[in-house]
Amino acid sequence: MTAAPPVPLRVALLGCGTVGSAVLRLIEDQADDLTARIGRPVEVVGIAVRRPAHHPDVPQHLLTTDAAALVARDDVDLVVEVIGGIEPARSLMYAAFASGKSVVSANKALLAEDGPALHAAAAEAGVDLYYEAAVAGAIPLLRPLRESLAGDQLRRVVGIVNGTTNYILSRMAETGAGFAEALAEATELGYAEADPTADVDGFDAAAKAAILASLAFHTPVSSADVYREGISAVSATDVARAAEIGCTVKLLAICERVPNGAGTDTVAVRVHPAMIPTTHPLAAVGGAFNAVFVEAEAAGQLMFYGQGAGGEPTASAVLGDLVAVARNRVAGASGQGPTGYADLAIRPMAETPTRYHVSLDVADRPGVLAAVAQEFARQDVSISTVRQTGRGDAATLVIVTHSAPDAALSATIAALRDMPAVRGVTSVLRVEGLS
Amino acid sequence: MTAAPPVPLRVALLGCGTVGSAVLRLIEDQADDLTARIGRPVEVVGIAVRRPAHHPDVPQHLLTTDAAALVARDDVDLVVEVIGGIEPARSLMYAAFASGKSVVSANKALLAEDGPALHAAAAEAGVDLYYEAAVAGAIPLLRPLRESLAGDQLRRVVGIVNGTTNYILSRMAETGAGFAEALAEATELGYAEADPTADVDGFDAAAKAAILASLAFHTPVSSADVYREGISAVSATDVARAAEIGCTVKLLAICERVPNGAGTDTVAVRVHPAMIPTTHPLAAVGGAFNAVFVEAEAAGQLMFYGQGAGGEPTASAVLGDLVAVARNRVAGASGQGPTGYADLAIRPMAETPTRYHVSLDVADRPGVLAAVAQEFARQDVSISTVRQTGRGDAATLVIVTHSAPDAALSATIAALRDMPAVRGVTSVLRVEGLS
Repeated sequence: MTAAPPVPLRVALLGCGTVGSAVLRLIEDQADDLTARIGRPVEVVGIAVRRPAHHPDVPQHLLTTDAAALVARDDVDLVVEVIGGIEPARSLMYAAFASGKSVVSANKALLAEDGPALHAAAAEAGVDLYYEAAVAGAIPLLRPLRESLAGDQLRRVVGIVNGTTNYILSRMAETGAGFAEALAEATELGYAEADPTADVDGFDAAAKAAILASLAFHTPVSSADVYREGISAVSATDVARAAEIGCTVKLLAICERVPNGAGTDTVAVRVHPAMIPTTHPLAAVGGAFNAVFVEAEAAGQLMFYGQGAGGEPTASAVLGDLVAVARNRVAGASGQGPTGYADLAIRPMAETPTRYHVSLDVADRPGVLAAVAQEFARQDVSISTVRQTGRGDAATLVIVTHSAPDAALSATIAALRDMPAVRGVTSVLRVEGLS
Repeated sequence: MTAAPPVPLRVALLGCGTVGSAVLRLIEDQADDLTARIGRPVEVVGIAVRRPAHHPDVPQHLLTTDAAALVARDDVDLVVEVIGGIEPARSLMYAAFASGKSVVSANKALLAEDGPALHAAAAEAGVDLYYEAAVAGAIPLLRPLRESLAGDQLRRVVGIVNGTTNYILSRMAETGAGFAEALAEATELGYAEADPTADVDGFDAAAKAAILASLAFHTPVSSADVYREGISAVSATDVARAAEIGCTVKLLAICERVPNGAGTDTVAVRVHPAMIPTTHPLAAVGGAFNAVFVEAEAAGQLMFYGQGAGGEPTASAVLGDLVAVARNRVAGASGQGPTGYADLAIRPMAETPTRYHVSLDVADRPGVLAAVAQEFARQDVSISTVRQTGRGDAATLVIVTHSAPDAALSATIAALRDMPAVRGVTSVLRVEGLS
């Protein structure tokens, strides 16, 4: 007598673009492995797409345009959501939880907008919501933050989490090109979307920063809490000035726990281009790669590096989550979700300490440096270094400040722009990681 | 009416050296966080040490010399083992499982020697055995391999996993010192133990390689399966020669899945010094840091970087595991253990493809290069580059081979040593990561 074959775990796949089709392929290629790891085979029982005719390579009987009906099916155990965007993904996710199904998602926008409510719904239903693929593609990052470092206290998470902007900035540094030229090249090579707004203006990075900060600091942080500046204003001059002081320009997602004398720390989350020293581990991260640098109280400095996008790498992260939620389903348990117990206040950007690099065109005559320095002093901003190049009418002052509240720095820049002795403010960028 | 306070999870701590005392401190410092994350407070109810008098800073009523009795106590829920070594750690671990207690360990030697049997015992008892701290200290690595990449197929794991040898090799490269001198400096600064054998001869790295390979390839691999060469034979000449070809010398732990035409892949696991290009991500890992480079089918290239040793970093990893097993205990579940289902054969070092860098002192006369080349050809080893420096009696031939079975390469070296035209073989090192 042979044992009955184990009942497969049945998966509904929502979306079948680059990531979805890679997920489908991996589930097929790794079928034996998945069965061994989970204890039961995995079977995709339905795929929701908008236009079935666009998916000739997929088993046609699996395709449906009715995602809501697919999620509600009694014979579906788990839902993989790789549609992206807010709706209909959000409604489908709530429907999945309501019918007792765990969800694996790659949806950074939705998680960053509505994470706490989604987690609450999953917890209430006793099911899992995992989304490793939402941040930094294939890099195992959310699970380490959530689980491996659960006994430590995180101070800082600084990452290059958007490959498109990193490619553009890398090319600007390599070729001396301006932003527009480098963007055009990235678009032509397929590294930038036809509408590059989400990447170039930092929306994508801000969503990832919100997710990282939420996990790192056990505090609900949404996209709206993230200060955001994109890279479209980064000029060839900025990149050249950075090189002059041994730095390179990167779009950083920075999540910090800011100590507060009164014992109540705050959380500051921001996305903006910054100069970092070329000796910083993040400086060497080129092209479309992602990397995230973590500083924890006991663990010290950690870095995670890998491919941040692409169908296969993202699908790898989706499958890791799928194995976890499938195992939980088999065991009748649910996994370690994020917690929001710390619930720290969000520190506004104006109060967040930063450092600036400022480059000014000035007339080289007595008193100009004193007048410029006076503007910094007026805002209580202390200067770290000043360098003057050129003489006469074409002099340039390059100033790097010490750390000061961001509002004081931006007020100083505004005042400098109004000074008669300043012909132009040719470069302003924040500086990170300089000692 | 107020709710009764939640019953604490009671922890037995075995060992209270650098790591144990850091664990104790973290459990105290992070008490509120741990309670929030686990759902119940964590309380250390006993600490087993050999000499209680050596631990004046620890609450004395917790100390005991009877580790077996502590593990057996009914009021102990979880065991943290940071004694290290094989016995009594092994017996205590089995006793913990037998009485239904999950174990968190930092014991690489024991896990590398007896991993499969220990896991089987834990699985039979329905409890957890976690040991993130055993490999690469604070770096979250085992959990990503075991869980995040569970839906992917790993090809290669290459790591710098021993801080002592990395410090020594870094210093040799920086100062031109020989091995003995750099070791003496490391010992003086506390980076090397009084008896440095475990580090310097590669035993520590080999144990970690065995653990990594087991997880990566779902195949039981023990220390005895790992080919091992330490760094005591690395000379200042080797380091200088490496620099000449744009390389640096690192002690690498290399775990590979070697494809086999017949469809049955094998696993090759080795620890030895090797030249790697200075452009390789691992080349920049200096001093006492650790880093592990992972290549997976779908995820592509990943790297994990951080502190590989030290009380606080190791304790951070122990606490991450403690939170996981405590949560499982509260939920009445057990976590995702490793699997050995693939059970691939171990490929002997002799058959493992490697590349060699060889430096020979020869007389510069007609026919010498031809004779040397002939010895390589005899073993079917193809040469990638040859460089000759000097003339007359002091000529040096520097040869880098293509990939060939390690036995063919070592046989070639033996033959070269016997050639009359070869005055001396001044440097032999394997090369990794060269294209």
